[in-house]
Amino acid sequence: MPIYQCYSPTGLLTESAKAKIADEITTIHCNATGAPDLFVNVLFQEIPEGDCFVGRKPSTHSYLMGFIRQGRNLETRQEMLREFTRMWTRVTGQSEGEILVGLSPSDPANVMEFGLILPESGHEPEWFDENRASLARLGVTH
Amino acid sequence: MPIYQCYSPTGLLTESAKAKIADEITTIHCNATGAPDLFVNVLFQEIPEGDCFVGRKPSTHSYLMGFIRQGRNLETRQEMLREFTRMWTRVTGQSEGEILVGLSPSDPANVMEFGLILPESGHEPEWFDENRASLARLGVTH
Amino acid sequence: MPIYQCYSPTGLLTESAKAKIADEITTIHCNATGAPDLFVNVLFQEIPEGDCFVGRKPSTHSYLMGFIRQGRNLETRQEMLREFTRMWTRVTGQSEGEILVGLSPSDPANVMEFGLILPESGHEPEWFDENRASLARLGVTH
Repeated sequence: MPIYQCYSPTGLLTESAKAKIADEITTIHCNATGAPDLFVNVLFQEIPEGDCFVGRKPSTHSYLMGFIRQGRNLETRQEMLREFTRMWTRVTGQSEGEILVGLSPSDPANVMEFGLILPESGHEPEWFDENRASLARLGVTH
Repeated sequence: MPIYQCYSPTGLLTESAKAKIADEITTIHCNATGAPDLFVNVLFQEIPEGDCFVGRKPSTHSYLMGFIRQGRNLETRQEMLREFTRMWTRVTGQSEGEILVGLSPSDPANVMEFGLILPESGHEPEWFDENRASLARLGVTH
Repeated sequence: MPIYQCYSPTGLLTESAKAKIADEITTIHCNATGAPDLFVNVLFQEIPEGDCFVGRKPSTHSYLMGFIRQGRNLETRQEMLREFTRMWTRVTGQSEGEILVGLSPSDPANVMEFGLILPESGHEPEWFDENRASLARLGVTH
């Protein structure tokens, strides 16, 4: 966690645009939450022509959905929404009217990553201390 | 918001069936909630043969998952479930046993669309008044 | 419900690996919750090269996301996370560092399957009794 899923019209994003967006999503997420880079997952999925409708009409909108740990305050979440929207319009050339950004805060007790149950937001230092050996074996350092 | 994601077996839906389903989802959602058409997003995704299992066996079921704003009452949500199911079986010819419909109510404070944080359910009139100029620039009128 | 969505790199899973994973997910879910096999949906989706990034870098991680009914206790959910992770690494050969497992507990009042609203966790016996005739017509026996 987090997992960010980006849905965009087929052909909108080049390989390098995807790499750039993944990098910027990671920066925005880590700056806002203090999470280490290695926990940020970004997935892309293309929407073929004819598979997206907005207001009953065929559309070429994009969607950025973030599954994040719960516990970040409203101000942080809304600043993230603004930064993701600005980043998306800048990198892709789409307008603010063509990108929907959503965050789904989830209970980290329901997530296993690197073979470990994730910590509550705010309890990362103890978690990294307790799991240093397991994480180091998997190449995760903090 | 809402975003409705339709997953169906590859080849089940023609281009015109998708347009018809998007139209009917929009009508059902707007009648139930009072939302304007322009906020209803419908995405389609095909499930290739071999990628769907139900009860351990290869299956050709379909799935309609709706990410909607929280705040609609139980009666409204369950009537939406019934209407989506009836519409799906009528348009596609699949049986009630082949379609699963789910609604995920979400906090609109975690969603940015048209560059704006969405309003709580019931506070749409003030929100449209406050954002009339921004929305008009993007072609959204109410 | 449940719906388990498996995202894995294109080509990682053969047809028989998918059947095996669907079978094992069904076993783990049913053992943990007492649900009948016929309610367990497993979907697979391949992630093409270049569409997955972890920690800013191209990645071949996999993701197993489960949409389950709410009401199972923490111990049950965490044992499920451990079993899904162990199963995935055993069947696919990926390491614990390459699979993220998440569970999203949802309100069954927001789900319609087999044309019926699903029961709360713990109220399955009454629900099967009340809906025996409709379920039998669809081939669901308990």
